[in-house]
Parts: sequence; structure tokens; C-alpha cells
Amino acid sequence: MSYQLYYWPSIQGRGEFVRLALECAGAKYEDVARGKNGVEVMMKAMKRHGVFAPPFLIRGKTVVSHTALILHYLGPKLGLAPKAEAARLRLHALQLTITDFLAEVHDTHHPIANSLYYEDQKVEALRRTKLFREARIPKFLGYFETHATLPFSYVSLSLFQVMEGLDFAFPETMRKTSYKNLRTLQEKARKRLAPYLASERRIPFNQSGLFRRYPELDA
Amino acid sequence: MSYQLYYWPSIQGRGEFVRLALECAGAKYEDVARGKNGVEVMMKAMKRHGVFAPPFLIRGKTVVSHTALILHYLGPKLGLAPKAEAARLRLHALQLTITDFLAEVHDTHHPIANSLYYEDQKVEALRRTKLFREARIPKFLGYFETHATLPFSYVSLSLFQVMEGLDFAFPETMRKTSYKNLRTLQEKARKRLAPYLASERRIPFNQSGLFRRYPELDA
Repeated sequence: MSYQLYYWPSIQGRGEFVRLALECAGAKYEDVARGKNGVEVMMKAMKRHGVFAPPFLIRGKTVVSHTALILHYLGPKLGLAPKAEAARLRLHALQLTITDFLAEVHDTHHPIANSLYYEDQKVEALRRTKLFREARIPKFLGYFETHATLPFSYVSLSLFQVMEGLDFAFPETMRKTSYKNLRTLQEKARKRLAPYLASERRIPFNQSGLFRRYPELDA
Repeated sequence: MSYQLYYWPSIQGRGEFVRLALECAGAKYEDVARGKNGVEVMMKAMKRHGVFAPPFLIRGKTVVSHTALILHYLGPKLGLAPKAEAARLRLHALQLTITDFLAEVHDTHHPIANSLYYEDQKVEALRRTKLFREARIPKFLGYFETHATLPFSYVSLSLFQVMEGLDFAFPETMRKTSYKNLRTLQEKARKRLAPYLASERRIPFNQSGLFRRYPELDA
């Protein structure tokens, strides 16, 4: 049985963390919103299933929403997580910490409201992002660094995406850091994902996604 | 086997969502950080187990962190969630939506950084909270309202806490709203939690927690 992934068709965003797992495992899936009338189909499915926001995944009668939960569900099925409960709980907790970090990444460019343009909250964004670069990146990446040597899993793929995203959004800041384990993991994951990353299915980073490049927000 | 809950001892915060589940079920648990040298003991356990932040729960050799994941783990054990996978996934997704909402609640009074005082980000807080009141409360509560009639579970207890918190932090705003299902649920949960709510174990809302009362941020 194949998977139907529902996520915004023109950005990597949170959906990309699910795409990476499906792609790395060579799973059969449909990226529904990238098909014909995709967004309309997605919004209808979202309402029908009482889902709050994309991404969500459907497989047969099972509907799963929230990036971290989708990965928790998929992990053992895709061979990207052990089946034992203790290990699954541990990976899920790590993924939820990544979720928290991504919310902070988003709020660097949208500190006041998602409904406003970046330009209309740029002053606040400058202030928030300075503290994000100085305190939050070290706190989170320092933590992830100590977990980057765990056996390869969906969390490894997500940490790859975190590093790729930060390298895109904050190249100056990242150049000054040294996270040896995370960098090793990043290259390992890049190799496993090579066919996908070279394909058209990989949407490039852009200024509508989670990770955005505003030079004034970088160091 | 009893549970050890680790959370900040002087606030309700995110830990309260776990306390409510344990208390409602009459589970045996220790609120570790409220004991002697509690915070020190908590910080040591946090490091030892590679946990990012409180709350976390320990039961025997199992360590679980993140509010929503702790509740996902506890749910069936406490009789506050079904054992079937589809229902558990659904409740967990709902709880993760509550998690997202709580992050937004926190950021009403801390839109720039958690490390700064409210007074040092008050201008930004006023701007963020106006949009939070006008757009985010209706969006999230409107969604929760459509799920408030589901069978009683740990999510019901969390929705009770969300409503209590909003009533404390934004009384003027909440007075103008009408969420019939959520209000019914709130009273139902209050009855079940009556012994706990009347006890000294229930920490009152205060100005250090997640929900804070700043009249200028209310309508």
C-alpha cells in the first residue's frame, strides 16, 4: 500500500522532513498537492479528516498529521527507526526537539505574525534573530551534536535538513561554527539522498519556506 | 511501579498538562523537583538522560520527554486514551496542535527571546498579542471546539487547562467568545479534577508561567 503525502507544493518547509524519509527508504508515495489542482485537493482532504494543518499523510484508512508524528509512524515501516518502544520514544523526543527548533527558525523572519509580510516585521526580526544566532543555534545544535552519532534513522535525515537549512539561511553564522558530528552526519545523509537531491522532486530552498536567506539577519 | 515527574516546581507551565493526567487517573507519582534540592536533582537527571528540557517522566528504565509524548505514553496506561493505534495517533496529533498553540501563547509575552524580561520586549508583545487575540485564538479554539465532544481523554484535560489559562491571561477577550463544546468540556474536567484543584499540589497561575496576566495584552 502506498502513501499519500499532503503538503504545500512549492516549498520544502516542514513537509520536506517527511519527503526525506520516504525518499531515503525508496517508498512509493504520491506528493498529492503537487498534482493537478493539488492544493484544492489537499484543503478538501484536510477538512474531511479534521486535520489542523499540512503536512499530513494518508495510508489506507490511517491519517497522520504533524511532521514528528508522521515520522514516528513511518520510522519502523521504512526501516528508519527500531521497533522497540524505548528507542522509538527516544527518537520521537529528539524529533520533537527539532520541531521546537524549527518553530524558532520560522519566527526569526516572522516574530510578530505569520499573516504579515517579513518587511512589516523586519525590525522585530532583526532583534529576534540576533539572539537566535547568539543563543539558540548554539543551544540546539550543541544538543543535537551529542546525539548525531546515534544509529542512522529518520532523525539523522531531519538533522541533515536542519544543517542544510541553516547553511542556506545563515551561511556567515554557520561558517564560524564547528559541529563535527553533525557535519559528518550531514555528508552521510547527503550520500544516501543523492538520487533525490539531484531530482526535480527536491524543491530548492526559496524565500517562501521555513529557512529563508535574508543577509541582514545573518551575522 | 510509580512515576517520577520532573518539572519546574513553582509554575504550572507545560508540566501541568502531565500533572492533570496523573492526578485525574489517581496515579502514584512523585513531582521530583518539588522535593528537597529538587531543581538540582532535576538538572542532574536531565543531563544524565540526555533530555533537552523539562518536563520529562521516568518510570523504571523508561525516560520520556516532551509534554505531548509523555501524554501519548501515559494515555493508555492511565485509562485516558484507547489502546488502538488509529485513536492514539489521532489524540497525539491533537495534543501536538495544543503544543503549537502553547508556543504561541508563550510568545505573546516573549516575542523576541525567552532570555529577556517581558518589560524589555513589551512593545513587540503588544503587537504580537493583538494579532494573537484577533486571529490565532479563534483559529485554534475554533478547531478545538470541533474536537471537544470526543470521548474523554488526556486531550480533554489539556483543553481544560488551555481554557483555564486563557481565562486567566485574557479574561476580557475570552468573555466575548462562545465555545459551547469547550466550555462544557471545561466544566466536566473541572469536576473530575476537583480534589486536585482544591489541593496544595495545584500551583496557582502566576507571572512566571506560560499563561500570564498582563492587562495591557488583553482586549
